[in-house]
Amino acid sequence: MQRVFSLTEHLKKSSNPEDDIHKAKMSAQQYTFQGWMGLDKDSVSGKMVWQEFEPKTWTEDDVDIKVTHCGICGSDLHTLRSGWGPTLYPCCVGHEVAGTAVKVGKNVKHIKLGDRVGLGAQAGSCLDCEECVAGLEPYCSKGLIGTYNAKYPDGSKSYGGYADYCRAPGHFVVKIPDGLTLAEAAPMLCGGVTVWSPLKKNGAGPGKRVGIVGIGGLGHFGLLWAKALGCDEVVAISRTSSKAADAKKMGADRFIATDEDEGWAKKNSRSLDLIVSTVSSPNMPLTGYFRLLKTYGQFIQVGAPEDAFPQFNAMALIGKGCKLGGSSIGSPADISEMLEFAVQHKIHPFIQVRPMKEANQAIRDLESGKARYRYVLRNEKHADELGV
Amino acid sequence: MQRVFSLTEHLKKSSNPEDDIHKAKMSAQQYTFQGWMGLDKDSVSGKMVWQEFEPKTWTEDDVDIKVTHCGICGSDLHTLRSGWGPTLYPCCVGHEVAGTAVKVGKNVKHIKLGDRVGLGAQAGSCLDCEECVAGLEPYCSKGLIGTYNAKYPDGSKSYGGYADYCRAPGHFVVKIPDGLTLAEAAPMLCGGVTVWSPLKKNGAGPGKRVGIVGIGGLGHFGLLWAKALGCDEVVAISRTSSKAADAKKMGADRFIATDEDEGWAKKNSRSLDLIVSTVSSPNMPLTGYFRLLKTYGQFIQVGAPEDAFPQFNAMALIGKGCKLGGSSIGSPADISEMLEFAVQHKIHPFIQVRPMKEANQAIRDLESGKARYRYVLRNEKHADELGV
Repeated sequence: MQRVFSLTEHLKKSSNPEDDIHKAKMSAQQYTFQGWMGLDKDSVSGKMVWQEFEPKTWTEDDVDIKVTHCGICGSDLHTLRSGWGPTLYPCCVGHEVAGTAVKVGKNVKHIKLGDRVGLGAQAGSCLDCEECVAGLEPYCSKGLIGTYNAKYPDGSKSYGGYADYCRAPGHFVVKIPDGLTLAEAAPMLCGGVTVWSPLKKNGAGPGKRVGIVGIGGLGHFGLLWAKALGCDEVVAISRTSSKAADAKKMGADRFIATDEDEGWAKKNSRSLDLIVSTVSSPNMPLTGYFRLLKTYGQFIQVGAPEDAFPQFNAMALIGKGCKLGGSSIGSPADISEMLEFAVQHKIHPFIQVRPMKEANQAIRDLESGKARYRYVLRNEKHADELGV
Repeated sequence: MQRVFSLTEHLKKSSNPEDDIHKAKMSAQQYTFQGWMGLDKDSVSGKMVWQEFEPKTWTEDDVDIKVTHCGICGSDLHTLRSGWGPTLYPCCVGHEVAGTAVKVGKNVKHIKLGDRVGLGAQAGSCLDCEECVAGLEPYCSKGLIGTYNAKYPDGSKSYGGYADYCRAPGHFVVKIPDGLTLAEAAPMLCGGVTVWSPLKKNGAGPGKRVGIVGIGGLGHFGLLWAKALGCDEVVAISRTSSKAADAKKMGADRFIATDEDEGWAKKNSRSLDLIVSTVSSPNMPLTGYFRLLKTYGQFIQVGAPEDAFPQFNAMALIGKGCKLGGSSIGSPADISEMLEFAVQHKIHPFIQVRPMKEANQAIRDLESGKARYRYVLRNEKHADELGV
């Protein structure tokens, strides 16, 4: 087990002792890796267990993060319940990890010890294929290594941020800029960038009318970003109008409640250039959403469903030259760009900070739709130490 | 009934006699409108009846085409059988209409009497909305008026080109450039441009690898265009390899037979930037096609199905940032651009010219998959007169 690190141990392994002494001294603190572990499917009902785990085998490309905050993402629940396929239990979820760098591999140039850092949903890729070289790491042709529930090439497992420490390849660890709290940065690392990326890539901004389907963790970021990007109109689309007041605060100019507004699709037809859908229900009124699109409009799905998409007739796309696309998280460069944008535009996500010890209750509350709009777990010991 | 035109009649209606005398003299030929009429759903089995019809009410925006050739499009069959909804019988189908202009409204500036002209699948739009003003007439927000089976704003019906004469608004009538025979131009007017348009709009050309699904009337144009556009690779995708040799002649560098090549999707995964699908079966292996796409790849559906699309999981799009789009025919500007391209690149479509009197047999043969690859009906009287 490679769980306890000491100066002596570190020096023993070093091939370049002089270079390493400084770093090792700075990281000369002992810590074990502990976190909330899902042991089986039942863990999703709030039965995660706090226990030790063995992080990935250390390499000089890695960074250890002392976790102060970790956002709770819908993916955590999908994974705990094996919703996207069998999960590699035991599993420590959480991929909106914020904290400080307490150990930095010598090959990692952009992070130094003590930096405020974050890690999103991706912790690895080949870094060598056409996609990775082009900065499209989430689409690595060799496959993405998730921040949790994945295996690194050496066979060691990845563990997420419902924990006190988190280890990941430095390539996927980003600096969190001044002007953004760790608590606010955390949910941007997956939830934020998952919506940021398709908005940016599909031209959200002045001259464009943009709809966001689903006003949850991701959707609320969609409204915040779209508004700050200067879109001509930002439209919140939800089943009911229960979140209309909040949506307005987030930047929505208009609200469509598809279960309440009779004839909503017809009334609002041809009004939007771009829709980003954060929901993943197989019952969503997809053909209605398509009606909202203008000619050449695009509907980008980011909510990853466990089931198949609702069926539709291709004429819904053909008749207006529309496109239905998908988009997956964001690259480290996307994340950094988004964080800078958040600072510049003074974006404050709607978060509810909860003690990490209440993680089990928090995932139950997320499952029952209580989050307004993103839960962020706070590792009280570490956050208190830093006063964050 | 406004079926017979004479110099006298023309002059009687004229508000500017001097201006009109010349045109009227040149068009001073008498003709009635006759064509192959579908009287009910059964007509698709080869029971169209040759009879007179009343064309749209003449306006000075219109052009009368003396038909020499008309391509047979799959849409003709869908319409004859009421496959896309109830057809307005009696219906004269055919929207790949080529011939000469025998009457030209005085508001029509780009066509003169005697010009070789063509008319595609669209014969009307508002010409006033955002789309029309932008040259996106096929996506007119007020709705497209089809070359057949549609009504003009004045209530008169549109009739297609399985006929001796065809009348349509001049805006949708294009000049056929020298260097292209009327027989070869005809099937480009719908089949050709329906594939041309998404290839052009989605960047087919050097540096791109392009797949064409379905090697029929549309698909064969896809191969011809993609090759001539200089794509790095052109891949024909069909159920069986029966058309492999032909596909090669059309420009395919590679052939995938999805019913024969086991593991075709895996073997060819991530190989294509763009796929244009000309088939419309609800049983098509859509998820397999998606596997062929590279990151950010696009799958554009142009075959208009009578049924819903096969179901798929959105992860197929999300995982690679791919898009599934639709595209409808092409604008008059697209058609003109394509025709010029065809001349420059010496494109010769694979057509089988058949006497128009055999139209009923020809649609039966198309239905049973015999076309190699586009039937073109030849109005023998008119074509013989012109020696074409």
